[in-house]
Order: sequence, then C-alpha cells, then structure tokens
Amino acid sequence: MTHRPATASARSVDEYRDTVAALLAHLADRTPEQVPVPDALGRVLAADVNSPIDLPVFRNSAMDGYAVRATDVAVTPVTLPVAGVVAAGRPGTEVLPEGAAMKVMTGAPLPPGADCVVPVEDVQAGADRIVVERGRARGEFVREAGTDVRVGELVTRAGTVLAPRHIAALAAVGLPSVPVLSRLRAVCLTTGDELRPAGSVLAPGQIYNSNGIGLAAALRADGVDVLEIAHSTDDATVFAQVLRSAVAKADVVFTSGGVSKGDFEVVKEVLAPLGGTFGSVAVQPGGPQGYTVVDGVPVLSFPGNPVSTMVSYTVFARPVIRVLAGLPAPESRELPLLTPVRSPAGKRQFLRGLTSDDGVEVVSGPGSHLIAGMAWADALVDIPAEVTTLAAGATVRILML
Amino acid sequence: MTHRPATASARSVDEYRDTVAALLAHLADRTPEQVPVPDALGRVLAADVNSPIDLPVFRNSAMDGYAVRATDVAVTPVTLPVAGVVAAGRPGTEVLPEGAAMKVMTGAPLPPGADCVVPVEDVQAGADRIVVERGRARGEFVREAGTDVRVGELVTRAGTVLAPRHIAALAAVGLPSVPVLSRLRAVCLTTGDELRPAGSVLAPGQIYNSNGIGLAAALRADGVDVLEIAHSTDDATVFAQVLRSAVAKADVVFTSGGVSKGDFEVVKEVLAPLGGTFGSVAVQPGGPQGYTVVDGVPVLSFPGNPVSTMVSYTVFARPVIRVLAGLPAPESRELPLLTPVRSPAGKRQFLRGLTSDDGVEVVSGPGSHLIAGMAWADALVDIPAEVTTLAAGATVRILML
Repeated sequence: MTHRPATASARSVDEYRDTVAALLAHLADRTPEQVPVPDALGRVLAADVNSPIDLPVFRNSAMDGYAVRATDVAVTPVTLPVAGVVAAGRPGTEVLPEGAAMKVMTGAPLPPGADCVVPVEDVQAGADRIVVERGRARGEFVREAGTDVRVGELVTRAGTVLAPRHIAALAAVGLPSVPVLSRLRAVCLTTGDELRPAGSVLAPGQIYNSNGIGLAAALRADGVDVLEIAHSTDDATVFAQVLRSAVAKADVVFTSGGVSKGDFEVVKEVLAPLGGTFGSVAVQPGGPQGYTVVDGVPVLSFPGNPVSTMVSYTVFARPVIRVLAGLPAPESRELPLLTPVRSPAGKRQFLRGLTSDDGVEVVSGPGSHLIAGMAWADALVDIPAEVTTLAAGATVRILML
Repeated sequence: MTHRPATASARSVDEYRDTVAALLAHLADRTPEQVPVPDALGRVLAADVNSPIDLPVFRNSAMDGYAVRATDVAVTPVTLPVAGVVAAGRPGTEVLPEGAAMKVMTGAPLPPGADCVVPVEDVQAGADRIVVERGRARGEFVREAGTDVRVGELVTRAGTVLAPRHIAALAAVGLPSVPVLSRLRAVCLTTGDELRPAGSVLAPGQIYNSNGIGLAAALRADGVDVLEIAHSTDDATVFAQVLRSAVAKADVVFTSGGVSKGDFEVVKEVLAPLGGTFGSVAVQPGGPQGYTVVDGVPVLSFPGNPVSTMVSYTVFARPVIRVLAGLPAPESRELPLLTPVRSPAGKRQFLRGLTSDDGVEVVSGPGSHLIAGMAWADALVDIPAEVTTLAAGATVRILML
C-alpha cells in the first residue's frame, strides 16, 4: 500500500469552504460609499432609498391639449375661449376662468380650476377659441401629484443591484447620489520563477503567467476592486516584501503557487511562520490550500496550476465573495451527464463542462494545467468524493462559471 | 367621431424597429480595437484568436516527485540514486542518467531520458538516493507539450463575450492584447425648459431630469460608451448647437422630448428641416418618434415622458444596439399573466411587469410618467395592438428589462 497521509487527513470541500467563509466574514462590515446616481449602474444599494419628493411633483397634464372644467365640456360640440397657454416648466399659477380653456403642454402644471384635459386631437383649434368635439370626465389626462411615488415612500430597496430602471427612478426623485456597498479591495499575488509576463520571449522552462490575470478577471466579474496583480519570484525575501505591500492596501489577498510539497514553496515558507495553515483539501484540482491572517488581512493561498487557481477561487472563495459583494449566489443545478466520467476515489472532482439543453458535456481532461481547455467550459461538473465512475445519463450537479 | 389622423396612419412597432435597425446598420462596420488581455473582461472578441504557442510549452512534470524511466521502476521497491533537481523555471536540459532519478517540481521540464514521474508521496527520500515504493507506467504524471492547445489552434472564437476563463486562457498563451469590437459611442441629449439637474431646488412647474441618466444607464448596460449626457432648453438655437456638438463626436445620438404635438417641440423644429422624419408609431407608451441623419450620424428622437424614453429605447433601439455590441439578444418569452389587463384598441402596449415562477404581474399603471413604478418591474409585457382586454391566466409575451 502506498502511504498517502495528505489525502487521508484532508478536509472536505464543504469544510474548507466554511473555513474560507469564516475567514472573510468580517468583510461584511464595511462603510457604504456614496456614489453619483449616473455612476451607480451595477452597484448594490446599501440602504433603502425613500423618495424625498412627491412624483409627479405637481398636478400636470398627460397630453398636449386644453385644460378645462369637465362640466364645461359635458355637451359637445362646444366652443370655448382660450384664456392662455401653459408650457412645461412654467409655474402654472394662473387660474382658469369659468367657461374657458387654457392650452397646456404634456407635463405642464394644470391651471387651478381645471379638472381635465381635452387632447389636441379632439378639438378644432382657432386663434383664440376652440371647438371641443369630445368631452372628458373629471381627472381624465390629469396626473395628480404623488401618484407615482409619495414623499417618504420606498423607491429602491437595500440590496438591489442597480439596473437602468432603478437609475432612472432615483434620478427622477432628484437624488444626486445614493449609498452603495463599497467594493472589496483585493490584490492578486502570483509566485514562481518560471512565470513570465505576456509578450515576453520565453527561455527554456519558462511559461506565461495567467494566474494573476485570470484570477483578477474572476474577482472583477464578482464586483471586487482588484488593486494590483503582483508577482514574486520564489525568493522568500521578495515574496515577503510583495506580500507586505499587498496586505497594507487590500481587504483580502489571494496568492497562487508555492503551497504544495515541492522544494521551493515560497508562499508556505513565508506564511506558515506567520500562523498560516497549509494542508490538503480532498478535491481535484486544487488539493493544496492555505490561509493566513496577516495584520488582520485574510490571505488565501491557492495552488499554482492555472486550472487549480481558477477552480479554487470558484469553489472556495466565490460563494462568499459574491455574498459580500451583494450579488446573487453562483447558479448551481442538476443536469444529465452527456459523457461518462471516471474520478479518483476519496476526492471530490470538479471537471470542466459545457452545458446545453440536453445536459452537460465534459469538454476538457481532468489535468490542472489544461487552462486553454477550460475556456471551452461554462460550468464545473461536481463529482462527489465517493463516486469513481458515472455513465452518460447520470444526474450531476453543476456550478455555472 | 373624433378625428385621429396620427393613429390611423401610424407605423407598427415592427415596422419602426426595422426602420431603426436599417438606420444603424452601417455601425456594424467599425474598426476593432486592440485591448490588453487584463482589461478585456466583458468585451466581445472581434476575430478568432489562435494560439501563438504550444501549451504546455514544453514536456513537464504534473507532480512534485522524481523523474525516472518506467523500466527502472517496473519492480518495486527499488532504490535509485538522485542525479539532480529540476525546479520550475530551470531549462531542464540535463539528461537523466540510466538507472537514476531526478527530483522534479510540478511544472518543471522533464529531463531528457525520463518518461514518467513518481510522486513524492510514493517514495522514501534520502539525501542522495530514494526508495520507490510504487512504480509508474510511461507517461504517468507527464504533461506533453501541446496537449492543452497546439500552436495555430483556436483559443477563443470571434464573437465570444470574454469571461474570466477566456481571459485566463488568452493570458496563458502569452497574448498581451486581443482585438475586440470597439464600443459604439453615443450622446444622450435631453430637452425641456422644465428639467432640472439632481440636487437642484425645484421652482414651481419644474421636475428633475431623469431621461438622460436613465437612457445612458440603459446604453452602458448594453456595452455602449456614453460620451456625454447633454441637455438643451426648448430654444432652437441652443438645441442646434448642442446637437452639432453631439453629432461631431458620436456614432449615434439619442434625444428625448420635443417630438409630439405641442407648441414647443424643439427637436422636431430643428431636425425636420434637416430631413428628419417625425410621426407616430402605434404603441403606448412611446407613440411620437423621430429619426434624422445629421452629417451621416443617426439621431433617434424619443418622446420625453420618462417611461416613454426608456420603453422607446428598449423596444426600438435595444435589439439592434445589442447586436451591434455583439451581445446576446434581449430575452423574450411567453408567460401567464397574473393580473387582468385592458389596453387601447389599435395600439400595441408595453406594460411594466414583474416576473416570478408563477407568471408575470403588472406592477405599475400604463401612464408614461410612472418612472418610479417602472423600477419595480423586470419586464415589459407586450400586449398586441388588436387586444383590448386580457384575463388573468392568458399567455403574454414579455421582454426582459
């Protein structure tokens, strides 16, 4: 028998997800930010917003037409003198004389005394008199003040992800700005002597660094403000310095690489002495995991294989990050499997799947280096730890990417 | 009988939507923009992107362990001398001697001569020799070059809305930037003497301007770059000047207000002599509509009631704007109606609805001023022109907001 202590003692995915949630829980207590309404699209309202005004602000005309008294147009046709014109934006304080009409534009204040509006299409208009061809009842084409929303009434509820329709309503009640959840500030910190930035010429043994860029994109898609994508070599002094800089400005720091069982595990080497916990989770990919609190700032350490980094974020951090950001939970549902799968015993496996109306197809191998393959997936296929084979047609749980 | 020429001759919603689509069709021909991969989240890829490299770039180890020849570990336990160490990032050109092992880290190049990796968990390691407790077959824990993607193979298809997984893959193949559809540039131009900016103290007859802010939010949600939210009084000279400035910089200009049958219709007054077409569409809200091409730039003129502006955009412009932006079409489906509705004959009506698992509930009155009410809706309920009443339980088509 092979000696596999790490697997035997590994935490479950659910245990580790709970650990991460507890580690980040204090980040729910952050001061809301006041943001101009035109810039608040997609932000999450931090408090109920009530209307500071009645809307409509004043009684006004719903049509271009003539403000009259309903009793004066009860019998038609009837000829009425035109006593004046009220344009939109005018104070509209002039009283409508008895037995007369006043021309009003849509949105213009209804003159005191008037109780309905005859649309322009329903009159024959002369220079100073009109023939009303169809009468109207009291209140017709009149918008009463406060019939859309009254002062003090709720306009948009706390927790709302602000869509264009909310922005329009908040603007209509005259609010220059609204309180929204402040974004979490994160730094992504990659490690590894072999990693080179995009556009470099690779020397033998080197690869391009995709972890920081991919992880930052995932965080941004979940409403996080990524302050920096930093990189450190495998030198402990360099890593410690980059880490200090990250912790000084971020609410949460993510590292990738340097956490497994090799000889050059700089993340573990620096963070374990600072109280970091490093160990295995019974999951594939993403087994080696670590977490540390440095100067009060949680540091989550993911393994460095590109797919491991992305899956670790998706499985362990994303659920709590989205809750903290005020965004809906990632979508999870059950689908029939379109391709048979095999999975190692004792490890929960997250395969890369592509969903369709028919079910979910596994579109890439299980290898944690297959990052180009992952681009063809839109979901992770969640294979429970105890399952080793599944036939096509079996029901599986998926987690949408 | 009432004389209603506008309604009698009005265009249908579908006709006017086609008119708008034709007016904007030339905007599909725009030069793609090259954007750094880390900034490309949510952008739409303008061309197929093929890999400039093999990925993995070179044959490497999938585990922290020992590179060996499979034939040397066919019988276990077996003791092998350790001929060296290959860290990730090292060139890895040193040949593995016959009958020996070389320590390798995950991602490190496999030494020439080695054909499998024994994970560190499967050996008893000494200073300069190891006891291998479990053998491995040729190829085990070896990642061959190009097995994720080969040079020249497709990484991400043209038209893809770039998600974090695409960003990670594009970074992994070393691309500093990718070609994406350039954003349409729009200016929103509101009109009306009665409109005041948020935060102002309103004089009698004045209201807050929500149209520009709401429309800009809707455009931004559809991937449009809104260069400016401008406002003009009802003075034709002022409007003409603001319009000229908008047309000089935008691909498309949206105006709101000033298009109906009143006395102060500045948009119509200025644009009709420039060749603008103004008339009625058989729709509620949003009946008066206009379009003009000014210096080659399409100008769409919506009516000024806040709900009319938002519904006009959603019904007439949004479908083509999203196609031009490379985004999926707005979602439309059929649902049971939870509330009975009445609708005017001869006009297609778009009511504000809130969807649930049970169906769609109408959540606001039909009035085109009920902009706060619209914030509670997540869909427009599409009532055909010929329908005047619908009972609860009837099937209706909805357009998600």
